[in-house]
Amino acid sequence: MRLMFELETNKVLKYIRRGKYHRVLLQFPEGLKPQGFKLARDIEKEAGVEVILSADPCFGACDVAVEARDLLKADAIVHYGHSPMVGRNFKNVFYVEARATEDVDEPVKKALELLDQEKSIGLATTIQHLDQLERAAKIVRDYGKEPYIGEAGGQATYAGQVLGCDYSTVRSIDDDVDAYIFIGGGDFHAIGIQLATGKRTIVADPYLKQARDITSAAKVMLKKRWAAITKFQDAKRVGVVIGLKTGQKNIVSAENLRKLLENIGKESVLLSARECIPENLESFVDIEAFVITACPRLAIDDQERFRKPILNLEETLIAVGSKRWQDYGRLGPEQEAT
Amino acid sequence: MRLMFELETNKVLKYIRRGKYHRVLLQFPEGLKPQGFKLARDIEKEAGVEVILSADPCFGACDVAVEARDLLKADAIVHYGHSPMVGRNFKNVFYVEARATEDVDEPVKKALELLDQEKSIGLATTIQHLDQLERAAKIVRDYGKEPYIGEAGGQATYAGQVLGCDYSTVRSIDDDVDAYIFIGGGDFHAIGIQLATGKRTIVADPYLKQARDITSAAKVMLKKRWAAITKFQDAKRVGVVIGLKTGQKNIVSAENLRKLLENIGKESVLLSARECIPENLESFVDIEAFVITACPRLAIDDQERFRKPILNLEETLIAVGSKRWQDYGRLGPEQEAT
Repeated sequence: MRLMFELETNKVLKYIRRGKYHRVLLQFPEGLKPQGFKLARDIEKEAGVEVILSADPCFGACDVAVEARDLLKADAIVHYGHSPMVGRNFKNVFYVEARATEDVDEPVKKALELLDQEKSIGLATTIQHLDQLERAAKIVRDYGKEPYIGEAGGQATYAGQVLGCDYSTVRSIDDDVDAYIFIGGGDFHAIGIQLATGKRTIVADPYLKQARDITSAAKVMLKKRWAAITKFQDAKRVGVVIGLKTGQKNIVSAENLRKLLENIGKESVLLSARECIPENLESFVDIEAFVITACPRLAIDDQERFRKPILNLEETLIAVGSKRWQDYGRLGPEQEAT
Repeated sequence: MRLMFELETNKVLKYIRRGKYHRVLLQFPEGLKPQGFKLARDIEKEAGVEVILSADPCFGACDVAVEARDLLKADAIVHYGHSPMVGRNFKNVFYVEARATEDVDEPVKKALELLDQEKSIGLATTIQHLDQLERAAKIVRDYGKEPYIGEAGGQATYAGQVLGCDYSTVRSIDDDVDAYIFIGGGDFHAIGIQLATGKRTIVADPYLKQARDITSAAKVMLKKRWAAITKFQDAKRVGVVIGLKTGQKNIVSAENLRKLLENIGKESVLLSARECIPENLESFVDIEAFVITACPRLAIDDQERFRKPILNLEETLIAVGSKRWQDYGRLGPEQEAT
């Protein structure tokens, strides 16, 4: 299935012409790469500029290819699929948010059918479906329930927007809300909402045109994270990994965490990685467990690809006894830094 | 099997103390990563410096982690497993060549048994086994044959040394030589020698303590490369990939190659990648074939991981008719640039 997104090529062309750029790097999350060939050809032809498609993985707005741009002596980046993260301004980067054009009526109605007890419904989504949030709120209201959309906050640019690492917008409405509907594909963000709030969360999936309760998936995930934390506690030799991506580099946190680990008798080393994947980390055979200080979702989403436990910052604090397991996922990212 | 290498930790400590460095990045090829944990702990303790282990892949002396060092605000790199490439000087990089301590007598004798017709034997190896090259020459002489070791040249620092991308040292003795013995593990470099010279090449493998004739492996490889070139010729839409690694970035070659492709009616785009792997490239579904302008060995060694043809610079010149297939692998890298 090739999905439909609004890629705003006219705005991109205007941006390139106005900046008088000569060489432009286009960057995409995986799902938008299939559009790359045509976009590059069109933009080169229309704007008379040299285009380079960045083929490296890109998993979020924290991962803007500024080093690649500089290495390639490109003038500007067009970054597709994410909105700028609050407080992280990169020069000569144009964001194309890639709003999806899929209809949300059917999945939101199906989600409401699963929520017969709950009255106040929090709505949240990712950048792709923000345009349909008001429409979803109307559907909730027509169904006789009260919709809530949290104001922009944390790293989120827009009301109702959640990021894999930031659930500030749902936290801000949580006192008023009985349950959540997350509009979007995958379980990733919905599990994040359920963890952040402890409340029932339903995915309204515009791609599959279905709704699903995330409760049991979240429970399975929690069980797996607890198992990883327990295994981590038994490890004697730990690697603390610093991510090299622009918005994921956190040297001071890594150093502080390392002190904490050494204090409780673990032997630790620092590592750095652009991609925190098993192919890169597991050759360090003596290391029995890893802490990933880059994106906090890597440990959660990629654990199954690793033979050894990998924890994020928050989970490591739980493992060493500096945070309570009951509070897992409940506090904002600002409280998770050591 | 954990292999034995000379890691010269005393020299590393002296280098770090003399430079008064504060934070040092250690970089390893895959086979040396298992030593990383202990090395990091030892160096930190002895030199009073903060050590970070680079976990990213490292496949050659062309891949020195200077950008990672700068991003991590480290003062210096200790680069294990390669010697500096001629003409590429990086500041604050200390090379530990990691000479192997495996004995070569048995495999070299076994290699000689396979060479009953040939009289003049060229010897070549990688950095790890250079210390045993003179010993190998003596064994050849004692066996009643004439050993030849080519002088340092091209990108190679030492006499008799070959790199995956540079066979200048064997080319320099080829007029005098009937066949080659390559001392080292794997088939990679030996196939390179056979291609570069067209002469019979035997691997004397110090790890497996055996010898093997590379002729049929080289033939299979040639057959596969010809198939890839033919498939490439049918492709309408081509991606020309620029590598982002320090010593593999070749923007001008990529641009020139692209012109060549457009001239014969192909539609092309430029891409950039740190790791030229199928996971990064194949999501660009419209692109039917790739040219990799980074390391010339990537296309040859990784083709089987790709569903689409990937060619190096030289192979692309053959595909577009600018070079003869009969000369494949025969010319030095300086002649391969467009």
